[in-house]
Amino acid sequence: MSLTATEVHNLKKAPPVEGMLPVIHERWSARSFSEREVSPEALRKVFEAARWAASSNNEQPWRFLVGRRGTETFKKIYESLGGFNRDWAGRAPVLILGVAHTRFSKNGAENRYALFDLGAASSYLTLQAAELDMTTHQMAGYDQGAARQALGIPEEYALGSVIALGYQGEPAALANPTLIERETTARTRKPLEEIVYSEWGKSAEI
Amino acid sequence: MSLTATEVHNLKKAPPVEGMLPVIHERWSARSFSEREVSPEALRKVFEAARWAASSNNEQPWRFLVGRRGTETFKKIYESLGGFNRDWAGRAPVLILGVAHTRFSKNGAENRYALFDLGAASSYLTLQAAELDMTTHQMAGYDQGAARQALGIPEEYALGSVIALGYQGEPAALANPTLIERETTARTRKPLEEIVYSEWGKSAEI
Repeated sequence: MSLTATEVHNLKKAPPVEGMLPVIHERWSARSFSEREVSPEALRKVFEAARWAASSNNEQPWRFLVGRRGTETFKKIYESLGGFNRDWAGRAPVLILGVAHTRFSKNGAENRYALFDLGAASSYLTLQAAELDMTTHQMAGYDQGAARQALGIPEEYALGSVIALGYQGEPAALANPTLIERETTARTRKPLEEIVYSEWGKSAEI
Repeated sequence: MSLTATEVHNLKKAPPVEGMLPVIHERWSARSFSEREVSPEALRKVFEAARWAASSNNEQPWRFLVGRRGTETFKKIYESLGGFNRDWAGRAPVLILGVAHTRFSKNGAENRYALFDLGAASSYLTLQAAELDMTTHQMAGYDQGAARQALGIPEEYALGSVIALGYQGEPAALANPTLIERETTARTRKPLEEIVYSEWGKSAEI
């Protein structure tokens, strides 16, 4: 497979449905990053997007640790990654770790929606990145304990995803054939019948 | 306060930032719904959006129970709501309950990202609704145990938000002054300095 970055971008698009928000169908999780840096302005905009997500009680439990390549924070996040992710994520110009405060600030009560809300804010971030022609890749494959210790994250914050952020690169630049194959395979999702129910286990007729 | 639906919609918009995905700044959580029904086509599109969210291992742990007003499912979701939410959510034409499978389907291992990923899919749904000029309101204020029992949701699914979906109505139609006041107050969010760190507790200079 020797697809170009543009060919891959087209391959990854979801099948067209009229009226859909374009970035929802176009966003995908690249592993190959070009050398292009992320400007401070572009970086601000992806966090500006995250800021406007909805949250339980408007608590906004999300915090983002951000490191540009070459900083200590980038290094600490990178070193927490699992081996498979280390094979590619080190070339991203920016690594971000999202965390969520699991206590409500007003009274210290448990916030059961902390990770749910962080998932929302993280997805706003990734959609805004797509809007700015960047790509993101969220990872669960990292050592949470190591990241927490290296970055000094208090116990009352739950850890979300590590997000690689940058501009899509050529698939051929990836380190091994497994990565190249994943980069050049179309995205797949369950059909609506499997995820939308009118009652438990029964597909909704919509 | 006697603002119209249009005046409220403008009031709720986030301050403009060039290059931002419009729906991210325009989406807000209404409580007043008009009589307008949600077409099957529009309903399919919001779930189509949810389908394309990213998830750990592409597990897609999200499932959505959907009920139109007048159905048993709507009634069961509605009856699980807390008193404050019952004062307004019964007028929404559609109620949805999002849940997440907390086990990976391939091996039964715990999926710690189930709620995080459901939060992402739910936010895709709400952004797509905004794109189609609908409004959504996600609620954590409901009795999870009652909803689980009434709807027969297995223990290995974690419960997310109840989502009211429809078209924005006039604030004055809300049931009491507290609801009207909330409906006609501008949205607020923490500044970026409080949520984006270069190291723990230190604002990133972006």
